[in-house]
Formats: sequence, structure tokens, C-alpha cells
Amino acid sequence: MPLRDHHQIVSVDDHLVEHPRVWQDRLPEKFREAGPRIVEQDGKHMWVYDGQTFPTVGLNAVAGKPPEEWGMDPVRYEDMIPGCYDPKARVADMDLDGVQSALCFPSFPGFAGGTFHRAQDKELALLCVKAWNDFYIDEWCATAPERYVPLAILPTWDIDACVSEAKRVAAKGARTVSFPDSPVPLGLPSFHSDHWDPLWQVCSDAHLPVSLHFGSGSYVPGFSFSSVKPVPGELVAPDAPFAVAITLFSSNLMWTTVDLLFSGKLQQFPQLQFSLAEGGIGWVPYILERSDYVWERHRYYQSIDFDARPSDLFREHFWGCFIDDEHGCKNRHEIGIDRIMLEIDFPHSDSNWPNSRKRAAEVLAEVPDDECALIVEENARRMLNFPRVSTPEPALAR
Amino acid sequence: MPLRDHHQIVSVDDHLVEHPRVWQDRLPEKFREAGPRIVEQDGKHMWVYDGQTFPTVGLNAVAGKPPEEWGMDPVRYEDMIPGCYDPKARVADMDLDGVQSALCFPSFPGFAGGTFHRAQDKELALLCVKAWNDFYIDEWCATAPERYVPLAILPTWDIDACVSEAKRVAAKGARTVSFPDSPVPLGLPSFHSDHWDPLWQVCSDAHLPVSLHFGSGSYVPGFSFSSVKPVPGELVAPDAPFAVAITLFSSNLMWTTVDLLFSGKLQQFPQLQFSLAEGGIGWVPYILERSDYVWERHRYYQSIDFDARPSDLFREHFWGCFIDDEHGCKNRHEIGIDRIMLEIDFPHSDSNWPNSRKRAAEVLAEVPDDECALIVEENARRMLNFPRVSTPEPALAR
Repeated sequence: MPLRDHHQIVSVDDHLVEHPRVWQDRLPEKFREAGPRIVEQDGKHMWVYDGQTFPTVGLNAVAGKPPEEWGMDPVRYEDMIPGCYDPKARVADMDLDGVQSALCFPSFPGFAGGTFHRAQDKELALLCVKAWNDFYIDEWCATAPERYVPLAILPTWDIDACVSEAKRVAAKGARTVSFPDSPVPLGLPSFHSDHWDPLWQVCSDAHLPVSLHFGSGSYVPGFSFSSVKPVPGELVAPDAPFAVAITLFSSNLMWTTVDLLFSGKLQQFPQLQFSLAEGGIGWVPYILERSDYVWERHRYYQSIDFDARPSDLFREHFWGCFIDDEHGCKNRHEIGIDRIMLEIDFPHSDSNWPNSRKRAAEVLAEVPDDECALIVEENARRMLNFPRVSTPEPALAR
Repeated sequence: MPLRDHHQIVSVDDHLVEHPRVWQDRLPEKFREAGPRIVEQDGKHMWVYDGQTFPTVGLNAVAGKPPEEWGMDPVRYEDMIPGCYDPKARVADMDLDGVQSALCFPSFPGFAGGTFHRAQDKELALLCVKAWNDFYIDEWCATAPERYVPLAILPTWDIDACVSEAKRVAAKGARTVSFPDSPVPLGLPSFHSDHWDPLWQVCSDAHLPVSLHFGSGSYVPGFSFSSVKPVPGELVAPDAPFAVAITLFSSNLMWTTVDLLFSGKLQQFPQLQFSLAEGGIGWVPYILERSDYVWERHRYYQSIDFDARPSDLFREHFWGCFIDDEHGCKNRHEIGIDRIMLEIDFPHSDSNWPNSRKRAAEVLAEVPDDECALIVEENARRMLNFPRVSTPEPALAR
């Protein structure tokens, strides 16, 4: 049994659904009406913010429901299990699932704050970013500091504000920042630009790995969805099932990885670390082999570092994670055994809750004990600087 | 030595550069001035057609040059080795390379005729499509029928004309048609639409596999290139090296594969076959595992076939190929040993010419003899209905 009782699962990708008072409890009075608040529309709970209405998509809170009942329609809070939005109930759900610690990404703000990035009133948007960070770190994580890993979002539209907020959250205990999987679809400079250098400096100095969650840059992959030409914003193939995009989401992170490997930024910031959240790992061996192949042949006529082989850069700067990736797990040594982590994805549809630990044990059945420890716990604790609190008995022995 | 002398390499992805008279020799007199012709500009050879000037990009004819001399600048015919544009010289180059047969995609027309798809004068464009097909089948392939596999492009803008041309070229010996890796970036209906059904019917009836070459739909992958929002047509990250796009080209074919697997068309046309040209194979195990995972969980609320598992559909309808894909080769049984082929990519920059056979022997060093025969020769001959001409002695024993 390679997944032993003393192995604590530290998940690097989970999600929370914000309760209705996250912003109403924190915004100055003059912004409360304009700030995010929950209204009832046609019997559904919807967010209202910045003159727009946003559904609480049902597919993002399916934990506890059989696949036959999943759907994209908006839902009410009562339709979700309380662990979606209540940190105490979540701990009970994690206990049931055999999971020790969770790193939760936002829902309404988008995985990296894209909702606030797109908003009109930037003074309010900055306050909303700070309010979410305060909510997650001071309210949610504080209920069980050993069980939740503090993460923060950033005001991506303003590099100076990004730097200030990154310093502020680092000082109050954040262990990682969530950043768009690519800034380009948000209209921002790419990873190749010097624009982000001051942020990479702070992240390097403060030991803040950058969590890149697929979709956090608002880009939907696949030829059949709205991100592809010729008419941006239009669903180009209304007959394509959304399952195509769900299958392909990791291609965002393939693109991101290759952008960063050829950007020169990893050499410029030797301490900078990137976590590929919800990207899977089974594609990594192919992409590294291909990156090296192209680097060998095409670095002569372009601005490309002659000395740093892309696959070496990957193993010094990237961390991958998976839920249920048998091919990736089998090829773990081509990826780097000290660079692979587990994710649970509660309460989203990829999650195996309440059988995450059981399923992980199946996927890791052929993996030796010491490698298992790295994958389910030690790599994540090292990346996040989130050490185990020593206890006489393992908290989750089962 | 697993690659034996009697194994003939049949490559399913090579390229030719059209000589200056391909269209001038074939178009009716009234269209000759407007049809594609070569002019000299600043000492370079350029195509003029449809009111525009097109370079003959140097990177597309690098065979025989060391990587230190590669570049994206236009070139003159004299800068290329004759095997780029002369079928007799090409046979000598293939002999030197240890390759028996080649399937050549067009250059000036785009891999699937995109240049003609975008042209204003559609009467001329249709004649240009037919002229290329006649040139390749009647002039190029006819010089050495055992060495060249006939392929045809289609007038993609008109489904009725597509059907007529597919029937015409099938009757004159075409073994495959080249089709855009996705029609969507060309402004055409997606693979999910019924629009293409008449073409799939002809391809099924005539045993014409559909060759999908990456980039043939004009889409450049990656967050840093012109195909990504927010401003279509603009290079969004001018500081990104083109090596990023070269590394990622196969993500086009990942998208295409998943579109087709969830389209229902493979069940509707049980004989329909797709060849993923220049896509590599190392990503296939991950994509199939991921497709099955999503299919297991997400088929309840969408229009998705309940009975056909995506990975089963892949092994009945798709063919992959590779040049130098160690990860893919190692995992060949997860892909399907009877579905993998070799490509040479002459005279492009991925090619190992004149060491293609030598390199293939290295990549296949651990592969048993019978599997080797499938990969380098028999699978391609079966897909293309291009049987070996029996000779007392192998033509290419070396």
C-alpha cells in the first residue's frame, strides 16, 4: 500500500465559493451598493457587480452530486453542500476525503481576479481584490491554519499595485499568488515582456511561487470556442459540446509553459517558481522533448538563450499537479519526481470527492513509498513553504 | 538492428516547393497574369497572386543547410537544393536519405490550399486548386510513381466544389486529401457541423483518408501570436521568439483530435480516416486518457454519444506520425501500434535529412522488428492504399 496512513495529502488546487457577505462586510460604505452582492433572480442566486449579473455556475459546485445531475445552469446556495462556502464544513468534507490541506482559488473573482480586471471602476476593483485576500487569509484560512494554504489574487491591471499587494499579502502570510495563465487574452503584456519584472522580483524575494490556474487568463481553448478567430467573442461552433473545452483546458498551460521556457525570465529570476494548477502532467514529457528539439535547432536566428536547455529550466522553475493522470504518473521520472504534486479540485467536476484519497491510492499503487510521500505531501509543502505541524499522532490516519 | 534493410520508409509528411511555371503552364490565358507567378524583388524570388506578394520563406527550404544558417527571410530558388522543387532531384535526395516514398504537401498554396481560400477571385482560385492537383499528380508523382504518394487540395470555400474535386482527384489516383486542421479560423463551419458531410461521404466511399497538417487552417498556436485575442491580426507579443509557435504547433492537432472525437462524425462515417500530419505522437496518450475522463463524467448534460469511448474512436479513425519523438515511441502501445507512421518533413527544419534513416534507426532501436515494419512502412501503405511494388531485391538496401 504505497499511500500510507502517515502521508498527509496537501492539495495545490481547490476552490471555494464566496459567501454573500465577503465584500459587503469589507468594502467602505460608499462602495457597498456597487460592490459584489448576491440577489435572487428567477429563484437563482446571482452576483451583481459593476452593472453586470454573474451566475453561480452549478458545474463549479458539484461535490456530492452524481454526474447525471451536473449542469451549467446557475444554482442557489442551498443547492451546494456547505463545504463549498463554509470553511468549517469544508474541514469536515476534507476529513471525509482523507485530505489534510487545501489551497483554495476564488470563484466569483475568477481564478486570478479576472472579474476585477475587467471592471470599470478601478478604485472599487482594487478594494475588491484586497477584500478577497483579507477574506481568504483572515477569515477562511484562520479557521484552520494547518488545513488551508493562504493564496492571494492581484490587481493585474496595475503593475505598481500588483507589487504593493504582493508585498502586503506576503507580510500577512500568503504562500502563493494566483496569476493569469497568460496575461495576453486580458489585453496585458505577455510573459516575454519586461512589464512584469517588478512583480517577479517581489515573488522571488518573498518566496512566493506563482500559481497559474488554467483558464485564469479568461482564454477558452479549442477551435470551437469564443477565443478563436475570426470573430472574437462569438461562439464559433455552437454545436460543439463544452466537453471539448474541458478536455483541452491543459493546452493553456502547455502554451504558458513554453512561453516561459523561451522568455529568458527564468534565467533573469533564478528563484522564481511557477505552479501549473489543474493542468495535469501527462503532457509534460512530450512538451519538454519538443522544446529541447526546437531549442537545439532554432536558437541561432532568434533571441534565445544558448546555454539554458528548456527541460532543465522546467525542472528548476515549474511544479505540476494531477488528479487522475495515469500516463503522467507512469512517466513521473521524465517530469521530475520532486516537481509533481496532487490536487483535489473540490468542489469542481474533476474532483473524486469523497473518494480522493482512495483514488489517489489506486493511481499511486505502483509508486514506491518515498516517491509517494513527495507527490502527495512533501513537494507541495516545499513549494509553498508550508511545513507540517508535528503531532504525536497523524491527524488523518485511516 | 530493428530497422532492417528490407524496411522501406514511407513518409506521410513531406513538402515540395512549386517551380515558377506550375500555374502559368496550366491556367487559361486570360488568368495567367492574375494567376500565381514568380517575380524578382530586391534580389529575392517572390510569388505574386491576387494583388498580393508572398515570400518563399527560407525556413521552408532548409534541407542541406546547417541550423546556424536558417532564417525566416525570403530566398531565391538558387538558394535551395534542387530537390525542393525538382522531382527527379528529390528522388536522389530520398535515396541519399534512405527513404522510399514521400507524401508531399504544397508550399505556396498553404498545406491545405488556404492561399486560394482567402483569394478574391473564386473562379481563378478554383482553377488554381485544380492546377496544383494536376501538377502534383500528373507531373511530380508521374516522374516516379512508386516514390510519390498522390495528394490533393480542395476548394474549401465551396462544399459542392470540394465534393466534385475530391471525386475528380480520386479518379485520377489521389490517395489522400489535405484539409485544414480546423476550418474555423478560415471562417468555415467547424467539424461539429453537418456542412462537411457530403465531403466525408466521398472520402469514405473513395477510401481517401483526410490529411490534417498542423497549421493548414492558418491558425498559429500560443498566447504570443496573432491568433489570440484581444486584437486579431496583431502580433500580440512581438518580443516572443517564433520558436514558441514551432514548439506548440502540435497543439493545433490536439484541438482537432478532441473536436473530432466529440463531434459524432466518426460514428456517422465509420470508414472515415484522419491522418495527423507533423503532429508528433507523444501527446496522444495524455489526450486520450483526458478525453475518456471527461467523457465518463460530462456526457450526461451535453449532446455526446453515450456508447463510443473517445480512445476507441481514436484507434479506429486516426493515424499519427512522428520524426523524432522518443516519448511517443516508448509509449507506442498506448497510442496503437497499427496507427503510428513515420514522417520525414523534407525540406523543412524538423527534418533530419540526409540522416533520416539513421535517426529513425536510433529512435526505433528498442522496437521489435514487426512493430518497426508497421511504423516505417506498413501502416502508411495500409492507410494510403499504396502497396509495395514487388521487386526481387529491396530498392533501398543499404
